[in-house]
Amino acid sequence: MVVVMAPGVDEAQVEEVSTRLRLMGLQVHRTDSRGRITLGAVGDLGALDVDDVRHLPGVQDVVRISVPYKLASRAFRSESTLVRVKDTVIGGPHIAVMAGPCAVESEEQVEQTAVAVARAGATILRGGAFKPRTSPYTFQGLGEEGMKILRRVADRHGLAVVSEVMDTSHVAIAERWVDILQVGARNMQNFALLREVGKTRKPVLLKRGMSGTIEEWLMAAEYVLAGGNHQVMLCERGIRTFETAMRNTLDLSCVPLLHQLTHLPVVVDPSHAVGVRDKVPPMALAAVAAGADALLIEVHPHPEKALSDGAQSLDPVMFEDLMRRMQGVALAVDRTIGPSSAS
Amino acid sequence: MVVVMAPGVDEAQVEEVSTRLRLMGLQVHRTDSRGRITLGAVGDLGALDVDDVRHLPGVQDVVRISVPYKLASRAFRSESTLVRVKDTVIGGPHIAVMAGPCAVESEEQVEQTAVAVARAGATILRGGAFKPRTSPYTFQGLGEEGMKILRRVADRHGLAVVSEVMDTSHVAIAERWVDILQVGARNMQNFALLREVGKTRKPVLLKRGMSGTIEEWLMAAEYVLAGGNHQVMLCERGIRTFETAMRNTLDLSCVPLLHQLTHLPVVVDPSHAVGVRDKVPPMALAAVAAGADALLIEVHPHPEKALSDGAQSLDPVMFEDLMRRMQGVALAVDRTIGPSSAS
Amino acid sequence: MVVVMAPGVDEAQVEEVSTRLRLMGLQVHRTDSRGRITLGAVGDLGALDVDDVRHLPGVQDVVRISVPYKLASRAFRSESTLVRVKDTVIGGPHIAVMAGPCAVESEEQVEQTAVAVARAGATILRGGAFKPRTSPYTFQGLGEEGMKILRRVADRHGLAVVSEVMDTSHVAIAERWVDILQVGARNMQNFALLREVGKTRKPVLLKRGMSGTIEEWLMAAEYVLAGGNHQVMLCERGIRTFETAMRNTLDLSCVPLLHQLTHLPVVVDPSHAVGVRDKVPPMALAAVAAGADALLIEVHPHPEKALSDGAQSLDPVMFEDLMRRMQGVALAVDRTIGPSSAS
Amino acid sequence: MVVVMAPGVDEAQVEEVSTRLRLMGLQVHRTDSRGRITLGAVGDLGALDVDDVRHLPGVQDVVRISVPYKLASRAFRSESTLVRVKDTVIGGPHIAVMAGPCAVESEEQVEQTAVAVARAGATILRGGAFKPRTSPYTFQGLGEEGMKILRRVADRHGLAVVSEVMDTSHVAIAERWVDILQVGARNMQNFALLREVGKTRKPVLLKRGMSGTIEEWLMAAEYVLAGGNHQVMLCERGIRTFETAMRNTLDLSCVPLLHQLTHLPVVVDPSHAVGVRDKVPPMALAAVAAGADALLIEVHPHPEKALSDGAQSLDPVMFEDLMRRMQGVALAVDRTIGPSSAS
Repeated sequence: MVVVMAPGVDEAQVEEVSTRLRLMGLQVHRTDSRGRITLGAVGDLGALDVDDVRHLPGVQDVVRISVPYKLASRAFRSESTLVRVKDTVIGGPHIAVMAGPCAVESEEQVEQTAVAVARAGATILRGGAFKPRTSPYTFQGLGEEGMKILRRVADRHGLAVVSEVMDTSHVAIAERWVDILQVGARNMQNFALLREVGKTRKPVLLKRGMSGTIEEWLMAAEYVLAGGNHQVMLCERGIRTFETAMRNTLDLSCVPLLHQLTHLPVVVDPSHAVGVRDKVPPMALAAVAAGADALLIEVHPHPEKALSDGAQSLDPVMFEDLMRRMQGVALAVDRTIGPSSAS
Repeated sequence: MVVVMAPGVDEAQVEEVSTRLRLMGLQVHRTDSRGRITLGAVGDLGALDVDDVRHLPGVQDVVRISVPYKLASRAFRSESTLVRVKDTVIGGPHIAVMAGPCAVESEEQVEQTAVAVARAGATILRGGAFKPRTSPYTFQGLGEEGMKILRRVADRHGLAVVSEVMDTSHVAIAERWVDILQVGARNMQNFALLREVGKTRKPVLLKRGMSGTIEEWLMAAEYVLAGGNHQVMLCERGIRTFETAMRNTLDLSCVPLLHQLTHLPVVVDPSHAVGVRDKVPPMALAAVAAGADALLIEVHPHPEKALSDGAQSLDPVMFEDLMRRMQGVALAVDRTIGPSSAS
Repeated sequence: MVVVMAPGVDEAQVEEVSTRLRLMGLQVHRTDSRGRITLGAVGDLGALDVDDVRHLPGVQDVVRISVPYKLASRAFRSESTLVRVKDTVIGGPHIAVMAGPCAVESEEQVEQTAVAVARAGATILRGGAFKPRTSPYTFQGLGEEGMKILRRVADRHGLAVVSEVMDTSHVAIAERWVDILQVGARNMQNFALLREVGKTRKPVLLKRGMSGTIEEWLMAAEYVLAGGNHQVMLCERGIRTFETAMRNTLDLSCVPLLHQLTHLPVVVDPSHAVGVRDKVPPMALAAVAAGADALLIEVHPHPEKALSDGAQSLDPVMFEDLMRRMQGVALAVDRTIGPSSAS
Repeated sequence: MVVVMAPGVDEAQVEEVSTRLRLMGLQVHRTDSRGRITLGAVGDLGALDVDDVRHLPGVQDVVRISVPYKLASRAFRSESTLVRVKDTVIGGPHIAVMAGPCAVESEEQVEQTAVAVARAGATILRGGAFKPRTSPYTFQGLGEEGMKILRRVADRHGLAVVSEVMDTSHVAIAERWVDILQVGARNMQNFALLREVGKTRKPVLLKRGMSGTIEEWLMAAEYVLAGGNHQVMLCERGIRTFETAMRNTLDLSCVPLLHQLTHLPVVVDPSHAVGVRDKVPPMALAAVAAGADALLIEVHPHPEKALSDGAQSLDPVMFEDLMRRMQGVALAVDRTIGPSSAS
């Protein structure tokens, strides 16, 4: 339920309404936007009489939200959410690029990657420290040490850092070192983890589960939002279908659909979806054309030596070339991407 | 198996080799390209000794094709196939646009559509005369009469015509009236129909089945090619997955994958994939960015009155706007689209 | 719409009502069951006033059917349809078994199979004469000659014959030689073919498409029923999912679901679903436990030499053993199967 | 790699070989079965020379395991694993039944259910205390309090308890109160959680993820086994496919497939797969026929009042009737189920 306060309402009235809603057992999320205050009230609305709320002093209107996700819906918030990470804004006209290796292997590897991706116009460094691996016998990531490496390298190059948390116990560690907490596809419905990242105030990159429906995905985002963390990005990374010619099927049609259903920014990860290097650029270009707000791309200084997912990593030269070509497509859809925006 | 003839081989030697291959029970498909002759030999190669063929006079090399589709593979023919329909070439740098209503309803409706799509830069008119409908109780199309309407209208506007055949008995009728024979998604593995269109010399637009794998799709194309009809286009129109938020899941990653595996042009139909009007333009733009050779888009003069699939049809104004935006994306990926190419 | 006539209505009134319905542009399907006459009226009901029909003389009640399949629905006909083929009744308490080779290869092969399956208690001989093959270069079946072999062999052993038709042009041929016309999974939505078999009065075995939903499948059956052919059986043979460890995923839960939604008998084909011999028996037993009305099982006298799908064929010894074990499971769910029923 | 020790080898040699393997960086899992000792060695085998191991004193043979799951494979352990929980053995000829409500709501509700399911022959009480719910706004379970209720009630009726853990932080709590730790479908690849339950010595019921392949599922089991916890059961609960007529598609063919690939017991949960009460019994019967080692069935004393998943819960009368019918099917496949086994 969205309670729209009247223009010029005084603060005491807002407080009064908020308190009343809380006494009804509801969670209240306040938004101040363009001089207008709205209160999102979520929880069990079963017994509530909407008219009681509508007639409270200072209330202009009350709108019921018919979809099961409330805080995540466009009905709750019509303006697009802007996620801010250092100097990067995600969700506006400029398309952000997050790039880096699948797994952090060493400071040297991350340093080489960071130099290359920063030069080409990426502003966020990605890298896995806690790695979800299908087999218990393969490289499982450097853990906290990996996050420290990312932090040091990123700081040297003015980059922000995104890295994955796989368990509630990782969240406090990650909060110390990284700027964006990534929740991976396999954990899209790890509700304990979603609650935990919802308690932080770090932006969250929520990947779509391999068989996650759009609605389940938005409900997963709702867990984070309900914790009071409103900086959530949705990241499409390919879904599991009958087709096995590619690792996954990149569902680009979810981009315009999400833009209709939710105010949260939409990120596309073509690297995990296709799984092979030469198919990443066309899918990255297509993602830009489809309206993605950011891209997550794997780059490795020496893909052939990568400990994880080397086959899908671009080398620095390919990445730079791709950045250049994405600029053209971005312009054609009235967006910008990469260093051109710095001018 | 591809038999590469030596440069400057004389015609008698080519004939001699062809005859020998036929005597081994193989079908022979000859290609003359850039002054080089190759003979594709398909059939049961079990008993064949490749060296016997390699040593025939005039033969330079023999290459085995390891994938189950032979004539459709890049190994058989490294150059991209160009499909020619009237003045339109599909498979080269210019991206063709096929547009029109889902179903032919009347000459007036087709006329209005044709005027609009031709003005905006489409060169091929689409329209269903034989309609595959889920229910036996809904409008089943005008049949041959619908094809005649398409022909008359297209001729008035210098357009080519593409229309669907659903049964072997439709093929002779369609040959009379249309320029491109469409085989629909539900008939991708209707092998009798594939054989029948393979006997004609009309270009074929082969849609991917709702759960057709890339390999099955190429094998379906192989049925047409094996009949001697080499003008085949593959059309992605969305696959069936667990996700039902959209009608189907448009698998754009198949575009670069097909370009690697086959020399046949790749067409994308965003209208059937997404099923709702406002999602068609972003997916059309993404298809261009991903490398599609042509687009198939539903346009109806009055979508709200359409007898079939009105919800996914663009009106003429939306279509014209989309054509303009596709030009920008096409330029960014070194292609052209629409009327600009005429200049 | 189902028009229920009053008990003891006279024939003239029935004719009168039928005519009125036809004049409204509807198709009328009459059912006489347990002394009660019902008229199923299908077509465009948009303009119809149900009360006009309800007040016609002799009419007791009129029931609208809310699902898109009408004649196929339980609402149209609450009693289960019994399909009769020679001495076999499908849809009653006895479970029928259809067995034989994937493809007819020779009279000797079919003869050996027929002897074995008849002895073990099968009453219907299956065998492919027109074969849908993924590749144009593999064995495509013996065509009409294969059907003649099936007929001769079946007649020698008192068996009925089921065999596939792939194209409208096959139907007249098949009508001459076989007892049940099979429409394969790839043709579930070949609407021209469905109409053609709907014109015959031969029982139809309609396989579910690889990605056919339950509703699409029932709509496909509706095409046959709407042609006046009411002897339709639905055959589950595995659907296409992300899981590739088996050829297909056998969806046994469709059996009780179909029994709720439709009056048509449900057949299960475990052989095509699993694709490997040793998984066929447990799935056949599970199908019986789930409530299947008949089973379609591949049996080959020498599976290792089969021209098609040998890997999934049982040999006669395995088949006989399976028949014995199915009897136990059938008894546990109050059904019978195999020769025991003859006693 | 499996190191098979010679018959009658002395303990010192076994120790010597184990130590050598550990020095190579491998994990060693010892099995004593039928007087034969085998050592499973897992980890990075890249640099290892198998012949070095084969020639160690006391070693009879060394077998490489070609599948990625090692400890879970039949190659590692040919005998079926028996999981023991109180008086129940899972994996032998008797089929175990786990029954109870989706969510623990109150002691009274659990008590009523326990009385009913124990009387009908179930020996394990199921009930959710930590509940994975799609929405953050719905009932999330009673947590530890729910587990205490399960424990108290189960002890009064001589039942064992299975309940779900959703996060690493739940494991220590659950160890105190329940007999079997359930890892739910959404957490099949929550690797941190799998490692944590692998550290306990409580039997683990590992549900298949909604889009988990057989291989990924066995790799998830491998995480638990690699921790030294060998009491793992695999539970099929329906997979996500294009078909939405049922909540999920129950993949019963995985039962015989798993019995071939792994020595771990296979459990089937028909309730979550079908999602509607009246389809549970036929699928439970089919699961028994397909070879399931145990069943997990939702039972609620008053399904219409359940806080979670009431629509799929059987009431006590339906459950008792189902138990009786399952006995017949079990006998037909040479198994037993329910109280009959006590006689």
